[in-house]
Amino acid sequence: MDFSQYFDYAAATPLLPEAKTAMQPYLEADFYNASALYSGGRKNRMVLEAARHQIAQTVGAKPTEIIFTAGGTEANNIAIHGVMAAYPKAKILVSAIEHESVLEPAAQYDCRLIPVSANGIIDSQQLLSLITDEVVLVSIMYANNEVGSIQPLRDVSRLVQDIRVDRKKRSIQLPLYVHTDACQAGNYLDMQVARLGVDLLTINAGKVYGPKQSGALYVRSGVILQSLMQGGGQEWNLRSGTENIANIKGFENAWLAARGAHKEEFHRLSSLRDKAIHAFEQQIPGSVINGAKHQKRLANNIHLTVLGFDNERLLMELDEQGFQVATGSACSASNDEPSHVLKAMGLSDEAAQSSIRITLGRYTTEKSIENLIAAIKKLVA
Amino acid sequence: MDFSQYFDYAAATPLLPEAKTAMQPYLEADFYNASALYSGGRKNRMVLEAARHQIAQTVGAKPTEIIFTAGGTEANNIAIHGVMAAYPKAKILVSAIEHESVLEPAAQYDCRLIPVSANGIIDSQQLLSLITDEVVLVSIMYANNEVGSIQPLRDVSRLVQDIRVDRKKRSIQLPLYVHTDACQAGNYLDMQVARLGVDLLTINAGKVYGPKQSGALYVRSGVILQSLMQGGGQEWNLRSGTENIANIKGFENAWLAARGAHKEEFHRLSSLRDKAIHAFEQQIPGSVINGAKHQKRLANNIHLTVLGFDNERLLMELDEQGFQVATGSACSASNDEPSHVLKAMGLSDEAAQSSIRITLGRYTTEKSIENLIAAIKKLVA
Repeated sequence: MDFSQYFDYAAATPLLPEAKTAMQPYLEADFYNASALYSGGRKNRMVLEAARHQIAQTVGAKPTEIIFTAGGTEANNIAIHGVMAAYPKAKILVSAIEHESVLEPAAQYDCRLIPVSANGIIDSQQLLSLITDEVVLVSIMYANNEVGSIQPLRDVSRLVQDIRVDRKKRSIQLPLYVHTDACQAGNYLDMQVARLGVDLLTINAGKVYGPKQSGALYVRSGVILQSLMQGGGQEWNLRSGTENIANIKGFENAWLAARGAHKEEFHRLSSLRDKAIHAFEQQIPGSVINGAKHQKRLANNIHLTVLGFDNERLLMELDEQGFQVATGSACSASNDEPSHVLKAMGLSDEAAQSSIRITLGRYTTEKSIENLIAAIKKLVA
Repeated sequence: MDFSQYFDYAAATPLLPEAKTAMQPYLEADFYNASALYSGGRKNRMVLEAARHQIAQTVGAKPTEIIFTAGGTEANNIAIHGVMAAYPKAKILVSAIEHESVLEPAAQYDCRLIPVSANGIIDSQQLLSLITDEVVLVSIMYANNEVGSIQPLRDVSRLVQDIRVDRKKRSIQLPLYVHTDACQAGNYLDMQVARLGVDLLTINAGKVYGPKQSGALYVRSGVILQSLMQGGGQEWNLRSGTENIANIKGFENAWLAARGAHKEEFHRLSSLRDKAIHAFEQQIPGSVINGAKHQKRLANNIHLTVLGFDNERLLMELDEQGFQVATGSACSASNDEPSHVLKAMGLSDEAAQSSIRITLGRYTTEKSIENLIAAIKKLVA
């Protein structure tokens, strides 16, 4: 398979061949329900728990702090509704550029948006002023899916820690938790929950070359969540339903590979990204790169505005030549609203509709990105 | 693969080889996000919609009435919470022998249990007396996962229809919906929603030789549900999250095969089941078959009590000989509570702990069940 013309890794990643291989036994002979008491069931339970253990280790968590979910959207919903249903009168703060699967659950409660600057990054001091005594949860995406801006999570958690100490002094009982949607971060960034200082963290197999509708939520010990769904009580009552061992094995395999390669891929893709950004800026007059730069930008993200060019038309013309790029996040591609992320960064509707997202990944090479640049250059000339 | 000694089809079914084959392209080259605008994404969207169309057709529904979910538990939760969150002060009735994924969501609202007789079947007239003017939802499982009793769904829906007419006459605005968890029924029973007269119906790929954590909820046009999870807005806002096309294809393939074979399998397995029941009753003194008989029992279910024999020990000894049976539903196998289903049918705790569930399926033959009977006979002799 040739994925060299694929530039939409933020929307979906091809399944890693080794992950697919790891899934096969569970799509064949080892199909047993992991809750069954006979040896086939018990063996699948062990496979599941071993995967949990492995994944926990890569983020520096205990296995009991990892719950498997049917995808990133589900994990985000379990985090937000899980905390807020336990404190329905408390407030929640989320950044203005969160994914819909954080924004929309949050909007069902007393929610305030944390603004971002023109480069798509929150200001920790501004956040500080928003954390009143009624706030129980702050959810800030690790790296943005549209423009790739990386949030200062460690600053946020240090600041939150100070507030917790202060609340304790003032005998305020309400806890203060930090959740981060790390779906886009898994391939490139540090994922040690203790270093990040987060209480809840969402990961998504489908964005790290694993199977779709598979993911996990890290829930720090002591954080009590209310369940969204009830049933057989799987995943410590937080995600009932017969487990999909095939998907969990595929997730585990892909995730370990992603974590093993993340530093190397970070360097390789950052370099390709910066060369491409330079080429766009030099070669396409009037082009603008949206979002943050260098270390504050996801290694694989380029977000380009070429004013006056309709992004859907550009996407379709590139598609005819075999290149896949995006006009925004795939999740909102089906509706026609201008992106809430770009709006929050201050882009006009016109600029938003002239923007494309190019995301790099495992199969991107120097040559393949040069070809893409040449094609875009020709189309907008 | 030899599944001839497997007798736990109610807990999990092996993936149909053709369904596995149907999944492969979407685990390889066709990995695109179905919301992406380029041709690969649009193609996957078409595949998804074609699967929805096919599945809708087999139950006599419109494609817009089918929502894909990550499994049966999720579909049951969406149905129960979806209706009840819209009418939080109304009442819900569920049978006492529902699966936990119906019972537990229902227990969060003003819920009353519909009792069952000793054979595990509800009495429609008793149900009638429970449907007061405050009831908005009645959830009755099509066929029970433990004892295989089949509920008189058509009687229920006729009765409900009369109540609706009466409510209308009396200007009572509250709707009255019928949900059925049909997870165990898909291989053997009529699934035409219009004939069944239900408003909501849960199906589960993992019980019909499809992939696990894949399923669907039929939602009759006009029934408004509140979403459990929010996000990208997939599945008409009822199940956000990037779709797993591989699972949906596997589900479609397995489901169409199951529906194509259901009459034949019903006859083949009913006959094997009745022979086995006869053999148990004749050859194992003191053995009791729990649940309903003949047409009122799922074609593949045998539920046997041999007083004085610990069911876990029996299960383990059979497992050593390569036979897989269950002591109850796999979902509750991990906890030690006696089955709520058997209790509702009036079995003592002692009888419940001396009971095993034997469920037949595609790979069960006359010979394989004879071998199982011989093994059990020897163990309890």
